[in-house]
Amino acid sequence: MTLGELADRYGCELDGDSGTVVDRVATLSGAGAGAVSFLANPHFRGRLKDTRATAVILEERHRADCPVASLVNSNPYATYARVAALLHPPRDVEPGVHPTATVAADALVAESACVGPNVAIGAASIVGERAMLGAGSVIGGNVRIGADSRLLARVTVLDGVTMGVRCVIHPGVVIGSDGFGFAEDEGAWVKVPQIGGVTIGDDVEIGANTTIDRGTIENTVIEDGVKLDNLVQIAHNVRVGAHTVMAAMSGAAGSTRIGRRCKVGGGVVMINHLEICDDVMFTFRSVVTKSVRKPGTYGGSLPAEEAQRWRRSAARFRQLDALAERLRAIERTGIGGRADGEGSRGRDNG
Amino acid sequence: MTLGELADRYGCELDGDSGTVVDRVATLSGAGAGAVSFLANPHFRGRLKDTRATAVILEERHRADCPVASLVNSNPYATYARVAALLHPPRDVEPGVHPTATVAADALVAESACVGPNVAIGAASIVGERAMLGAGSVIGGNVRIGADSRLLARVTVLDGVTMGVRCVIHPGVVIGSDGFGFAEDEGAWVKVPQIGGVTIGDDVEIGANTTIDRGTIENTVIEDGVKLDNLVQIAHNVRVGAHTVMAAMSGAAGSTRIGRRCKVGGGVVMINHLEICDDVMFTFRSVVTKSVRKPGTYGGSLPAEEAQRWRRSAARFRQLDALAERLRAIERTGIGGRADGEGSRGRDNG
Amino acid sequence: MTLGELADRYGCELDGDSGTVVDRVATLSGAGAGAVSFLANPHFRGRLKDTRATAVILEERHRADCPVASLVNSNPYATYARVAALLHPPRDVEPGVHPTATVAADALVAESACVGPNVAIGAASIVGERAMLGAGSVIGGNVRIGADSRLLARVTVLDGVTMGVRCVIHPGVVIGSDGFGFAEDEGAWVKVPQIGGVTIGDDVEIGANTTIDRGTIENTVIEDGVKLDNLVQIAHNVRVGAHTVMAAMSGAAGSTRIGRRCKVGGGVVMINHLEICDDVMFTFRSVVTKSVRKPGTYGGSLPAEEAQRWRRSAARFRQLDALAERLRAIERTGIGGRADGEGSRGRDNG
Repeated sequence: MTLGELADRYGCELDGDSGTVVDRVATLSGAGAGAVSFLANPHFRGRLKDTRATAVILEERHRADCPVASLVNSNPYATYARVAALLHPPRDVEPGVHPTATVAADALVAESACVGPNVAIGAASIVGERAMLGAGSVIGGNVRIGADSRLLARVTVLDGVTMGVRCVIHPGVVIGSDGFGFAEDEGAWVKVPQIGGVTIGDDVEIGANTTIDRGTIENTVIEDGVKLDNLVQIAHNVRVGAHTVMAAMSGAAGSTRIGRRCKVGGGVVMINHLEICDDVMFTFRSVVTKSVRKPGTYGGSLPAEEAQRWRRSAARFRQLDALAERLRAIERTGIGGRADGEGSRGRDNG
Repeated sequence: MTLGELADRYGCELDGDSGTVVDRVATLSGAGAGAVSFLANPHFRGRLKDTRATAVILEERHRADCPVASLVNSNPYATYARVAALLHPPRDVEPGVHPTATVAADALVAESACVGPNVAIGAASIVGERAMLGAGSVIGGNVRIGADSRLLARVTVLDGVTMGVRCVIHPGVVIGSDGFGFAEDEGAWVKVPQIGGVTIGDDVEIGANTTIDRGTIENTVIEDGVKLDNLVQIAHNVRVGAHTVMAAMSGAAGSTRIGRRCKVGGGVVMINHLEICDDVMFTFRSVVTKSVRKPGTYGGSLPAEEAQRWRRSAARFRQLDALAERLRAIERTGIGGRADGEGSRGRDNG
Repeated sequence: MTLGELADRYGCELDGDSGTVVDRVATLSGAGAGAVSFLANPHFRGRLKDTRATAVILEERHRADCPVASLVNSNPYATYARVAALLHPPRDVEPGVHPTATVAADALVAESACVGPNVAIGAASIVGERAMLGAGSVIGGNVRIGADSRLLARVTVLDGVTMGVRCVIHPGVVIGSDGFGFAEDEGAWVKVPQIGGVTIGDDVEIGANTTIDRGTIENTVIEDGVKLDNLVQIAHNVRVGAHTVMAAMSGAAGSTRIGRRCKVGGGVVMINHLEICDDVMFTFRSVVTKSVRKPGTYGGSLPAEEAQRWRRSAARFRQLDALAERLRAIERTGIGGRADGEGSRGRDNG
């Protein structure tokens, strides 16, 4: 692929020889001849001057600092992503059903689809054109897998789940497990049947060992373009709005509805029955306990500190109510407020 | 099924025609003719008046407000659960061993059990009547799976694990992996063999991708009626008491013993070697660092807030010890306590 | 095995008859005749006097209190680990490829390796001497599994991953899934191809359902002797230094580099692009948001308390900034600082 072709295809201005050939991508510092690199995060700007890449994708403002050919574009990271996909395409899907796969007689598998070793497909399920079901995947009954979706390996999709086109599902993912619903009855639990399904939109990506429960009565819904990282938990009846991203180890409890284009940091959890509007960001490890009706950024978690210092703050945290009462006593009665000894009790109390 | 039959079977008073037929369950707002719905959470009471359900299961206090037939019962949610199970029974277990399964010569599989595609069963293991081992499950040696237990798909049960009757185990669950035991020796780690097993009681449900480690020497124990949600971690030597529920992403570290009928919120973690008595509830995302000897509710986590506001609180948290010292100085010496400048240092410090 | 042989082999002083035979390990309180136990944690010292073990491995300082034979050593836990491994060796690896396994024509599997039922091995992969690939494991193309490594069951190792010798990988582990990389473009996400690999060193142990993503361009690296517990998340481009341990449900976000011999507590998460030096310990459930350049212990999390008390502290936490301002007003202007009513506003505010 020549730089000229890349510039044309992705709308870049090219500083350099349009006939130069590149064949792979690399980091600024790891690149050698033939590699295209990129500069998106200005934090790494310092690495530009020593790069040995053949060309760098970057913004106008870094153009003058680039010692090699540059492909100038207003969104270098997205452009890099497209160039990388062109130079490093995923393996072709090899059509055919592996002889060790078990496919129900009334399942419909497109001829262009790939069904890998030891895959099981249940009754009345439909697998679309060029879809890939990787080794060891288990597909229940009445499932629909859309065209060009790829289940990499060992994915489980249980009865009645519908998945759109061009999804990427990583190993160990479970879609359609029962929601956690039990009714208390005299000190024990009666299982509440989980008879809803799961609807997954188009262009959804789901990370390794993530779990998505089926709805209690209606469906759990993951809308188009959602990206879920590894070890994410989506409980029954949750709806995740289009183009929302959820980083690793985050989760949403039952019936919570998350808006569109939200950004959920790693380890964030939301309690049940919340409504989160569109365009909300939750920072790393937040605990969300209330609905959010206004777009914006919400936090937080308390960052780790040197342990001695942390212990002092944590001990004071336990005294917070007493500290506030002592402050109030001073405000109300002057320093004499201490005469009743509340101050000292407060101090001894942690 | 007629309303009269349901009322008889589940001890409800019926307001309406006992011969009316219903065939499925639905939500109050999603129901149509032929559907039974329920009202358990008074929060949803407002949906009652517009429901198009054929009948609603509810408490005496909502009886007068129900525009359609009602099945009146003191525990409508548990009654709903039983009605739903009756109208939407799980698929029958089809007896037989799939030709792609690998069963050790000396394993004993009941004739009424179902062993799915690509299941492997190790030496001397026993699978009870009507048990179901879903596709891709792996059963080690000397395992016992009790009657009517269902491993939905891709469950791993390693050597020496015992499971009772009527359990439901969701895909991706791992039972009997080695506990995390290593002895430090000159800057490296010596593996401590994990030679205990795991004992799972009757009527246990375990959610997708949950992990339960085997004991170091003796057994990890999950007692009868326990319900674990998805992505839960149970470490070696833990005991979870009967009818305790643990929500998604919660966990217990090594040798902790959790009492009976506890309710562990999502994301709660307990450190090792704790004793938690019966009837304890931990709210969402708590970190449990001490044994609990008194039933009751324990928390907590700090809820997310608008990021600016959170940052101010978090910065003050880091100053807490200094703030407390400044307060104490005022209490001790009056406003003059500030003359030594401690106050300003405190303020500048975050 | 006689006590004399054990003493010789592991450098212990023996108090007792060197010809006495032992055949298993047990806890101090669970032991009977023929069992070796150990005392490593002085907390359990009280159990020594009633033990019915045949011998106990312990330190010099407990020697005089031991009512039975003792094996005296400066590191009784590590010595116990070695004795336990000797008396309870893992099952032998039975060489051979199970007839239900699918092995690519150009894969190289050592004759002494064991490939279990329903395993799939991709093109050009290499499986070393005495390695074990447990039932249902999926190995991609161009993978290397070192000698004596054991993938217990249902492990997924995707294309291009390299694993050293003597590793132990528990069920459900996924190595080499795509990192979570997407470029934002006009409200949607463009996938950034993840073309790096994963390098796993020697003597690494990885717990059940843990996930390790491949690098974006270069490799994610797990160095020699690392031990990861269950449900751990390692993001793309992370490096975990030699002999570091990470307890269950911990994780490191993209490109973070963790030093050697670190101890990461359960549920600890680190944000992306951090540098953690060698010999750092993070306590249970910490949130690490800054690089650490000095060895030592860092925390923390706030421990759960009785819910009423917690709620009071949490409410005060929300008022912290106002409390600090009220304190400052007093410091600055005396009790009169309250005359503007700031104090009462502060109090009403939570």
